[in-house]
Amino acid sequence: MHTVPLKLVTIIAEGLLRDRLVHELLELGATGYTLSEVKGEGSRGVRASDFAGRNVRIESIVPPGLADRILDHLAEHYFAHYAVVVYTMDVDVVRGDKYVGD
Amino acid sequence: MHTVPLKLVTIIAEGLLRDRLVHELLELGATGYTLSEVKGEGSRGVRASDFAGRNVRIESIVPPGLADRILDHLAEHYFAHYAVVVYTMDVDVVRGDKYVGD
Amino acid sequence: MHTVPLKLVTIIAEGLLRDRLVHELLELGATGYTLSEVKGEGSRGVRASDFAGRNVRIESIVPPGLADRILDHLAEHYFAHYAVVVYTMDVDVVRGDKYVGD
Repeated sequence: MHTVPLKLVTIIAEGLLRDRLVHELLELGATGYTLSEVKGEGSRGVRASDFAGRNVRIESIVPPGLADRILDHLAEHYFAHYAVVVYTMDVDVVRGDKYVGD
Repeated sequence: MHTVPLKLVTIIAEGLLRDRLVHELLELGATGYTLSEVKGEGSRGVRASDFAGRNVRIESIVPPGLADRILDHLAEHYFAHYAVVVYTMDVDVVRGDKYVGD
Repeated sequence: MHTVPLKLVTIIAEGLLRDRLVHELLELGATGYTLSEVKGEGSRGVRASDFAGRNVRIESIVPPGLADRILDHLAEHYFAHYAVVVYTMDVDVVRGDKYVGD
């Protein structure tokens, strides 16, 4: 099976940020995303009061260059004020051409 | 800790396909799976009308050869008609021998 | 964007173990975790009667050495009696210094 190496970007944030983050993801060029409800706690490194309770996990499969731009965007607009967790991992994606924006 | 390098296969599909996909995964040789409810949207590459709303994420840890067979199976039976998202990633699994079928 | 290579440890266990596992994760040095509800089944390698139904997925981003200690701990205290699934994967984490305990 032919697969394409891409990046899975995972963003975990308070639920209130969901729609805004999704909108910005798509604006930056992501072609889709997956949402799931999670709970979380950052007991030391992240301020627990901000991060405990209901959160949303937003995942998007994107090319490496777009992953970098998403991370830059989040750093610039969220990190000072929100307890957002962001990480990327390597994935091999079937029909990978569908994840490259216009 | 001794771990075994295996593949985590992730399938995201509309909820109606859940039981059928799980049945086929096990038929192909997977020894287990994990289900979670997600929402998703493919805004460009995937037909949004097919993919928006409630979906199921099915994950299964399998040996590399079985991962390939699962991807081939999905490509043959689903890709023409369903907006299924499929990707694999490398994982290091404790008690990895449990994930190899008979 | 500067990222730090860390390990994402995923633990899937019956829901009753949730609080105990979270407590032990933090005791071992993890600085946070994410919880989500999943369903699962281990059809052959794992005793299905123990593992079917509602489970919890616990994820934590930690340095590699701590990932090893978590796996050792789980092996020693859980594997003989519980159908716990444990795996790790490589992730690149933004603000990775937040995930290193005191």
